[in-house]
Amino acid sequence: MSNAQLDEGRDNRERVVILGSGWAGYTLARQLDSKKFQAVVVSPRSHFSFTPLLASTSVGTLEFRTALEPIRSRRTNVEFYQGWADGVDFANKKVTIEESVVDPLQSMALTGDRHAGQTAEERVESKQRAAKKGRLFDLAYDKLVISVGCYSQTFGTPGVKEHAYFLKDVGDARKIRNRLLSCFEAAALPTIPDAIKKNLLNFAIVGGGPTGIEFAAELHDLIAEDLDRMYPELIPFHKISVYDVSAKVLPMFDESLTKYATEAFRREGITIKTSHHVEGLKPGAPGNSPDSHADYACYTLNVKEEGEVGVGMCVWSTGLMQNPFVANALRELPELPQAAKQSETESGQKAAPSQPWKVKMDSKSGSILTDERLQIKLISDKQETVLQDVYALGDCGILEGTSYPATAQVASQKAVWLAKRLNKNDLETSSFSFSNLGTMAYLGNWKALFQGGQGSQISGWAAWVMWRGAYLTKSVSIRNKILIPIYWVINWLFGRDISRF
Amino acid sequence: MSNAQLDEGRDNRERVVILGSGWAGYTLARQLDSKKFQAVVVSPRSHFSFTPLLASTSVGTLEFRTALEPIRSRRTNVEFYQGWADGVDFANKKVTIEESVVDPLQSMALTGDRHAGQTAEERVESKQRAAKKGRLFDLAYDKLVISVGCYSQTFGTPGVKEHAYFLKDVGDARKIRNRLLSCFEAAALPTIPDAIKKNLLNFAIVGGGPTGIEFAAELHDLIAEDLDRMYPELIPFHKISVYDVSAKVLPMFDESLTKYATEAFRREGITIKTSHHVEGLKPGAPGNSPDSHADYACYTLNVKEEGEVGVGMCVWSTGLMQNPFVANALRELPELPQAAKQSETESGQKAAPSQPWKVKMDSKSGSILTDERLQIKLISDKQETVLQDVYALGDCGILEGTSYPATAQVASQKAVWLAKRLNKNDLETSSFSFSNLGTMAYLGNWKALFQGGQGSQISGWAAWVMWRGAYLTKSVSIRNKILIPIYWVINWLFGRDISRF
Repeated sequence: MSNAQLDEGRDNRERVVILGSGWAGYTLARQLDSKKFQAVVVSPRSHFSFTPLLASTSVGTLEFRTALEPIRSRRTNVEFYQGWADGVDFANKKVTIEESVVDPLQSMALTGDRHAGQTAEERVESKQRAAKKGRLFDLAYDKLVISVGCYSQTFGTPGVKEHAYFLKDVGDARKIRNRLLSCFEAAALPTIPDAIKKNLLNFAIVGGGPTGIEFAAELHDLIAEDLDRMYPELIPFHKISVYDVSAKVLPMFDESLTKYATEAFRREGITIKTSHHVEGLKPGAPGNSPDSHADYACYTLNVKEEGEVGVGMCVWSTGLMQNPFVANALRELPELPQAAKQSETESGQKAAPSQPWKVKMDSKSGSILTDERLQIKLISDKQETVLQDVYALGDCGILEGTSYPATAQVASQKAVWLAKRLNKNDLETSSFSFSNLGTMAYLGNWKALFQGGQGSQISGWAAWVMWRGAYLTKSVSIRNKILIPIYWVINWLFGRDISRF
Repeated sequence: MSNAQLDEGRDNRERVVILGSGWAGYTLARQLDSKKFQAVVVSPRSHFSFTPLLASTSVGTLEFRTALEPIRSRRTNVEFYQGWADGVDFANKKVTIEESVVDPLQSMALTGDRHAGQTAEERVESKQRAAKKGRLFDLAYDKLVISVGCYSQTFGTPGVKEHAYFLKDVGDARKIRNRLLSCFEAAALPTIPDAIKKNLLNFAIVGGGPTGIEFAAELHDLIAEDLDRMYPELIPFHKISVYDVSAKVLPMFDESLTKYATEAFRREGITIKTSHHVEGLKPGAPGNSPDSHADYACYTLNVKEEGEVGVGMCVWSTGLMQNPFVANALRELPELPQAAKQSETESGQKAAPSQPWKVKMDSKSGSILTDERLQIKLISDKQETVLQDVYALGDCGILEGTSYPATAQVASQKAVWLAKRLNKNDLETSSFSFSNLGTMAYLGNWKALFQGGQGSQISGWAAWVMWRGAYLTKSVSIRNKILIPIYWVINWLFGRDISRF
């Protein structure tokens, strides 16, 4: 849609530009009253990923599209441009967007700045070229919502960015599904010696948070319920290990639940290796044997406590890294925008600080700090102010003074709250607070954990029923509310599909 | 599975090695009596593609996996190695296989020999290297079924192999779905001028056979039923054209049905361009303007009658090319195999011809010629014989003296017939004949064509009901018999999903 068409469709409504289509951005876009606001989502991907079900899709318990919602559909009143937010001009209220329609990374976890390695001058030049080609353009906003999310943290561990598998989006889930089924198919070739079979069927998961644990659990189910009938001769060679640097996995759960999980994993044959340090990942089998059988097909994990370990796949899930857009693009404001000036005058502070204003960021995580209305904070010298009409939520924003976790639950609560305030126009008299609805984790073999916000604890089959019920209820569209239980039943009856394409 | 394990599992049964997992190979493997035969499928892909539904999956009317069946599943008694047949030693009854577990082409149409460009010596060397790495191995057979299918014919048209989209397998369907939705998303960017929008949304289909026509029809449905609500401002820019060199499309249908189809397409706004010659395809917009807006995103089709035409996608479906395995690997037989010798002696022919035996091939298509028992024919000088225990069916085999079309129907009838003969051990007293059950084609907008084997003709909505009914009945697994109608209903109610990942 051209800018003129977009302006025409605006129709006296305020334009809310929403950067990102994750839990925060997608939820907000859907809940804004389209009679009052023109919602425009800008995101490098054309969909929202329902992250709690990604692990299920990565082994085929569910089909990929049941864990996503298109931003455009017949039923939504949301405008959409597919692109990366590249910069913001707070003073003139516009964002610069770099289109990403055919970007191959659009449905994958991100691990680094896509412009890394460019000097400032080179970046300016490449932006000019992109603008000339129509790949870079400006978009004006009345209100701006920054919900660009985070990247995957690899701590600079050598080889991880290049060779590990992540699980943040549906493209990652597809990559994992193809890879793990390839490992079994390769191990089934008549020429593969037992030592290589062991490497190929050794699955390492790095990070003992809910994502890593749930992936291990789903992988166990796939192998125990399906692959053992298709590749019976390979089952003795397989192994699933969860590595974590800390002394305990699932740190958000109480001790008794963590114990239950550890015990459940032990019975399922999944090894949990706490206090282990992964120091590198490279292609090929352990030892330098480039001519050995099919070594092209496995990887070597370097573990401080174990040395070289041959693996078929390493799934990496050790937390979040700040988004380069937040880290770079929001660094300096050339001029204090009007909105901030007003707020400053009202509160009776000094007129102009000697230093330029900066977005206030959390020193540890690098996240944007907001006030209790989710408006972003600016800082200069020791003065502080709030930038009206610019909000930060999701994993890239922290309400200053709180320690709410970077979860889907916090992101979507903030989005629902902000949409309500904007729809009712009562933001000035409200403030956000998080209500903990509890945490869940699937453990495999029809068992799960639930820890309620008020301290209640449920484990085992009852928690599994809650787990499935909760995600079915929370899933967004009617379409997926119908398809998800259908796939649960079909795959239980007929087995998961192991075709790769 | 190692060769020793495979031999052990053989258990006094004859081993039937089946090359290929298309209509012929997959059907035969499923129908062989597993008490009498050890069926071993060798195929570069891990699944069978239900080709009549591929066009539906390429626009999202159906989900990809509803058009495929995994060769391995919890319920089948079929052994499987994922690889390319590389050669056959008829004398010693074994095939050489090149594994293809991580081959990126495994679910895509093939357009050329993957070893093209290698000299004979280089090929020998690369085979030795592959064997050393365990990527090449031999497999012994008692009976061999050659059902490797055909490649896609491009007639050497420049740029087609590299830039056209094909529709022979589910990987092709996914590529097309992503591409055509990308074209709409790119055209929706605010910087794209109208001229480029016209290029991006111009969809050219080359080849007016059932595949090309059905794809055009499904594309029309996607645009008319879904995209027109999501991108209303882009609809005036779109165009669908079917090019064919001959004077009429759908040559297998009678004149009156072809007329009906042409008229239906005209009403749907699809242009049929018969007697048009496509001479090339290259990336970029027409005219040499490398700096113009987003021209990286479209292609230029060179048409003899029209000149340069800017297109967003060119779907190519102009028929079949002989499989390089048939064209190369089966050329010469170093020694007449025992099975052929026997048959020769029985029939009282001369003992040893002066020229080496060759597999008898059709001079026009290059297909393997078989007798009426689907056993392959050998030829030397002017002598002919039949190679017992080696069968050719599917698109790579022709029953000598017949002109059965290269269709799924012929392939699966041959496979069912051969499986029955082998199961009943009455091959020697039988001969195959094809029973034409009719031909169908979907035309879009809930209309289809049906031409019965006895000359009956049905067109319109009634034929559409038959079309859906027939493919639902013919679809292979109960799983897909359940999922296919669910997706038909869900996508009719809620619209097709346009997410790309």
